[in-house]
Amino acid sequence: MTSSSTLHQTAAILVIGNEVLSGRTREANAYLAAQSMFKRGCKLSEIAIVPDIKEDIIDSLNRLCQRYDAVITSGGIGPTHDDITMDAIAESFNVSLLEHEDTIAKLHEYYGDDINAGRRRMARLPEGAAPIICEKSFMPGAHIGNVYVLAGVPDIFASQLESFLDDFGGKPYIRHEIEVNIPESLFARALEDIQSQFPDVEIGSYPRLCGKKACGKICLSAQDETRLYHAKEQVNIMLNSIPSTKP
Amino acid sequence: MTSSSTLHQTAAILVIGNEVLSGRTREANAYLAAQSMFKRGCKLSEIAIVPDIKEDIIDSLNRLCQRYDAVITSGGIGPTHDDITMDAIAESFNVSLLEHEDTIAKLHEYYGDDINAGRRRMARLPEGAAPIICEKSFMPGAHIGNVYVLAGVPDIFASQLESFLDDFGGKPYIRHEIEVNIPESLFARALEDIQSQFPDVEIGSYPRLCGKKACGKICLSAQDETRLYHAKEQVNIMLNSIPSTKP
Repeated sequence: MTSSSTLHQTAAILVIGNEVLSGRTREANAYLAAQSMFKRGCKLSEIAIVPDIKEDIIDSLNRLCQRYDAVITSGGIGPTHDDITMDAIAESFNVSLLEHEDTIAKLHEYYGDDINAGRRRMARLPEGAAPIICEKSFMPGAHIGNVYVLAGVPDIFASQLESFLDDFGGKPYIRHEIEVNIPESLFARALEDIQSQFPDVEIGSYPRLCGKKACGKICLSAQDETRLYHAKEQVNIMLNSIPSTKP
Repeated sequence: MTSSSTLHQTAAILVIGNEVLSGRTREANAYLAAQSMFKRGCKLSEIAIVPDIKEDIIDSLNRLCQRYDAVITSGGIGPTHDDITMDAIAESFNVSLLEHEDTIAKLHEYYGDDINAGRRRMARLPEGAAPIICEKSFMPGAHIGNVYVLAGVPDIFASQLESFLDDFGGKPYIRHEIEVNIPESLFARALEDIQSQFPDVEIGSYPRLCGKKACGKICLSAQDETRLYHAKEQVNIMLNSIPSTKP
């Protein structure tokens, strides 16, 4: 675990997977991690989804590592030819991939002498990385520098993520939402005024299509509960002052 | 529409939205666009999700525009303070935002003289942009250079996307999947051999957790149906040759 003085305040998620870019799979791991970061009070600042191409992974990794406190990757650490994330991480940090002895020992215990090349491949970690161990898989993720390398299988990703969340954030974010049946254009300027009074509260407006009627939500989030409460109160007062009109 | 000689072969999607990064909203528009690109035969090469911060939008836009044939953006074109995508696009292309006359006329027709500032804001397009008109909203998206600027509301995004899909791709991709109950590590090397025989077929292996049993899918996609068929046949022959073993 990172010491409390260096908890990560900003993070990015790098999803590696052709299956997301081809529309086969609806992305789930970044969605989970986004919720976790919010609850931990860490600002998730970017999500990038790139294909199983080593150069693309390295480019994105280098860019995100420099820009944010920490990067969490998802996918590409299995035994097949399209699993190249560990190789990319090692190349990015300019280190070798080494078999992780404890993992090899566990594999021997379970499979006897028969550890095939695929399993050995999955037991490799970049030199200097700490393993990320979880109960859902023998195979470790890796923590090296400010990068956390996780599996793409959602159950394993979730379990690995859980194991190091204490490295992130500080004061949790809280969110309140207000259902709104008024066209956005009628309250946009007033909402902007409230936003400028509460720079520490993030205020967003999310309309939906509901036939001819206007509908949507105003969403407020902050780390300070009292400020959030006051901002929400201002929004409610403002909304109640708007006369009804054509949608 | 882009002329047939310049159909976009690669694309990126740029989602602008704090609501996705905070885990409030599960991303849906990039998922839809990924499926559309696959069906059209355009390679979706990257998805980036960034916050409602102008500098971040411009940075990502410039990077993606240079790298891929086209960029589709989602979100941030409403009337509220957090809707800054059109401003970012205009700044990135170094042009002004101008009211779109046809849209203003439509608004007058519907609302009479009462077009408020919010609606006027949404009627702005970057100078030189073509409007993206759809049946779900009065308010236009924008097509400028190789960038398509779409709304974040999923129904409007979908309708706007549909209107210019003919600019993309060429020969549709086709996908076949094979359910597999063998640990990946037992077929990883053989699958790699098949992949190297079929560089024009994208082969991925996607395991799931199914208790103690191995399970997952091998997924093959290509633009050439015959090649896809032959690759799939090779994978099936390979899988049938593997003796059952400990998961």
